[in-house]
Amino acid sequence: MSELTVRAEKLDAVDELAVKRAEFVLDAASGHAADAAVVYLDGNSLGALPAVVPGRVEDVVRRQWGELRIRSWEESGWWTAPERIGDRIAPLVGAAPGQVVVGDSTSVNVFKALVGAVRMAGDGRDELLVDATTFPTDGYIAQSAARMTGRTLRPVTPAEVPGALGDRTAAVLLNHVDYRTGRLHDLPALTAAVHEAGALAVWDLCHSAGALPVGLDEHGVDLAVGCTYKYLNGGPGAPAYLYVRRELQDRFDSPLPGWNSHAEPFGMRSGYEPASGAPRGRVGTPDILSMLALEAALEVWDGVPVEAVRAKSLALTDFFLECVAEYVPEGRVECLTPVAHAERGSQIALRCDDAGEVMKRLIERGVVGDFRAPDVLRFGFTPLYVGFADVERAARVLARTLG
Amino acid sequence: MSELTVRAEKLDAVDELAVKRAEFVLDAASGHAADAAVVYLDGNSLGALPAVVPGRVEDVVRRQWGELRIRSWEESGWWTAPERIGDRIAPLVGAAPGQVVVGDSTSVNVFKALVGAVRMAGDGRDELLVDATTFPTDGYIAQSAARMTGRTLRPVTPAEVPGALGDRTAAVLLNHVDYRTGRLHDLPALTAAVHEAGALAVWDLCHSAGALPVGLDEHGVDLAVGCTYKYLNGGPGAPAYLYVRRELQDRFDSPLPGWNSHAEPFGMRSGYEPASGAPRGRVGTPDILSMLALEAALEVWDGVPVEAVRAKSLALTDFFLECVAEYVPEGRVECLTPVAHAERGSQIALRCDDAGEVMKRLIERGVVGDFRAPDVLRFGFTPLYVGFADVERAARVLARTLG
Repeated sequence: MSELTVRAEKLDAVDELAVKRAEFVLDAASGHAADAAVVYLDGNSLGALPAVVPGRVEDVVRRQWGELRIRSWEESGWWTAPERIGDRIAPLVGAAPGQVVVGDSTSVNVFKALVGAVRMAGDGRDELLVDATTFPTDGYIAQSAARMTGRTLRPVTPAEVPGALGDRTAAVLLNHVDYRTGRLHDLPALTAAVHEAGALAVWDLCHSAGALPVGLDEHGVDLAVGCTYKYLNGGPGAPAYLYVRRELQDRFDSPLPGWNSHAEPFGMRSGYEPASGAPRGRVGTPDILSMLALEAALEVWDGVPVEAVRAKSLALTDFFLECVAEYVPEGRVECLTPVAHAERGSQIALRCDDAGEVMKRLIERGVVGDFRAPDVLRFGFTPLYVGFADVERAARVLARTLG
Repeated sequence: MSELTVRAEKLDAVDELAVKRAEFVLDAASGHAADAAVVYLDGNSLGALPAVVPGRVEDVVRRQWGELRIRSWEESGWWTAPERIGDRIAPLVGAAPGQVVVGDSTSVNVFKALVGAVRMAGDGRDELLVDATTFPTDGYIAQSAARMTGRTLRPVTPAEVPGALGDRTAAVLLNHVDYRTGRLHDLPALTAAVHEAGALAVWDLCHSAGALPVGLDEHGVDLAVGCTYKYLNGGPGAPAYLYVRRELQDRFDSPLPGWNSHAEPFGMRSGYEPASGAPRGRVGTPDILSMLALEAALEVWDGVPVEAVRAKSLALTDFFLECVAEYVPEGRVECLTPVAHAERGSQIALRCDDAGEVMKRLIERGVVGDFRAPDVLRFGFTPLYVGFADVERAARVLARTLG
């Protein structure tokens, strides 16, 4: 038994979140290596299945839809699900109730948030800044939002943002954690700089919510969006969410004013009058099956302080880097993720020329991460169900695979 | 036994679609009248649960998500679901394969379709016509599409459309069947008139797809949208679909160019290049749980000619009107749905001043329709699972309730 294996055991033994693993379906036969459980380090792409979900979904399908049918819109709470589930996500992103609404995809919510932000910024401000290193959909949607509001889109790196801000800036779209490198950006400082310039700050939380504290209210973020199928374990393609800061809600002017966002949705009026509060961010009929699966999935967060998640996340990634340094020959991989805690999300990205082939073989050997073209091995560390022994094993198998 | 009861029995006995009822979950205990099964005449709002769905959803949750996890994007066909399911819907709306894509809500698809249509119409055409009698969300979204493309929105009744068309018309959004009155509009003639004026025809099929032939390809419709939770029985808030006529696909310029609509989605490129064909209508990550429930639900259509559905739909609504005329005192209700078959969808709308109270009591008595403020009783007839005995009983209970 190596020193690192012993360390892993000790770390797992004192891990206060270790009990959470039993709330996930992880150790079923999975068609991978037959001799051992899979080490799942891809929860930053698709979170594992919380054990409570299958039974809940069955109830939604068989009883709520199958037996109650149309009555469930009232009796099973379908109608109010977008705000109710938004309020369950709210504490995970540091938001007081009434500011988060669930529905639509992340891309659609980026569109709502950016167009909404530009309209609130006013006519004099004709430039939209977007994180040039962001997940591409944010850039594509930002381009469309700029085009449709007559603004100019200017891609900049997060580091260039302070220097790019000015009187022309309407809004800035930034990713809290870079999907590729795992770099954590300084949300408080960047938000303050954006506000200093009189612009609005829009944050994409896809790779941070559920992995580390976000503090939307505390730092005065204006609008934010995020997905729910990564660290929030809501299921494949589960609905995303939109946060609009309370003070801005009355001015939020959605580009997608569907009937669900009307002040009186069942009035069936020809004139549009927006609802107050979070429901203003709704659009069409909510996608109930996916939404209620997400609601069940969020129960695993009951009693889990996000600070504890962050502490374990950093311990996991520190330990992974330590194991990699110990097991993998120097120079065989290059770490793209910052070593400084303040700049690290909950993933480690390693660069090597043969990353595609390496990841394929890693997966065959029961260590599931993902490959990002052209040369990145990406490993996500989800503190609710990944343990230190998993981390040690992953690094060991990685070293063997790198040869 | 009344003459109409006997007639109902005979009609059910020769109904070739009667066997389909067994493919739905309908006769479970439902908390309504304990002594008899519910007559469900609200399938035009939320379709009943197809019996195949619960088992399929369980497999998607427990095995595809729970065991295969991220591998399911490839191995379980998650990634291609939007086009694959679109191709299952296509024959129901008269479309050849490769033109329908599933995803997002109806409202979001109305936005894509209208902005896309306006952009294809070109700069010289500055007016958007919208059905003033339509379901409100279409009007609200059309207003946003007009505002964001610098066009003027002009609400007109479908009857006024031919007279309102001209050189300024960019596109026209019409509902195939009016959600309130059940009136069926003349899609072939109106589409031809729109084309005659050089504009694009966009149809909302929410209340017609799955109830009657639509003939999108045959009649040269340009773009169309529809929901899947009414006559298509996809489940509450199931994803909607977008049809873009093949000849227009290369010119379709989506206002929501998310990463799923990119020619190379996993290239993660900063520049946007739209995919060819139906996938160009995609936006973000597809909502897999809801989408695969819909896919299972569509299996009930295997071998069902839509013409047979239409024939039975008209027979059901004819018979309902006959029963109402026989049982309900003259003048107690007014039928808002046209008597002419060519103008009737698959619902009957009856007006009476106390409609809200009447529908409440009808539901208590096991006849489920819905109430549309201020004074409409709406009954939907879904030919796959509603029989003639149901219709007779509904009319009888209605007469008793009306007093």
